[in-house]
Amino acid sequence: MFRHVAMFRWKPETSTDAVADIVEQLNGLPAEIPQLRAYHFGTDAGINEGNHDFVVVADFDSADDYVAYRDNEKHRAISSAFIAPHAAERAAVQYGF
Amino acid sequence: MFRHVAMFRWKPETSTDAVADIVEQLNGLPAEIPQLRAYHFGTDAGINEGNHDFVVVADFDSADDYVAYRDNEKHRAISSAFIAPHAAERAAVQYGF
Repeated sequence: MFRHVAMFRWKPETSTDAVADIVEQLNGLPAEIPQLRAYHFGTDAGINEGNHDFVVVADFDSADDYVAYRDNEKHRAISSAFIAPHAAERAAVQYGF
Repeated sequence: MFRHVAMFRWKPETSTDAVADIVEQLNGLPAEIPQLRAYHFGTDAGINEGNHDFVVVADFDSADDYVAYRDNEKHRAISSAFIAPHAAERAAVQYGF
């Protein structure tokens, strides 16, 4: 299994509506990217102080399949139009297990 | 499902041996913490620039089970003795899905 993890800290002005739009857009990606084996994203539960605000975890059969997701045109359009304008910080790791 | 994700950026002086020790210690946790449903951690694959160095993804049945993991004595001892001394940056999210 090869996993991609990306975390975001939103800008102070980012609204809950903007985050709902991001969730709606990401929900459409599994239908566009057959390489996705599992795709679970969401907003921090608020249990701990100092956390990032949102995380995306995407599972693939291989690193090549992750790269297909990373470079997918629809995914890149969502990242540019819906996510990047709200991202104050981003942290990411890809790893195999 | 309730998921905990923590990412780390190691200090410049952190050795591969120190990271191997962290992996060895974390490998022992599922035997100590029955609430862990899945536990997959590892070092960044080096595909993208600017990534963090290491990620831990832990899955539970509930937020309460995550808190049991967070507060587990053996887990806290590993965090203090093996991880914290090498962590230059930490980013975390807990979320349900």
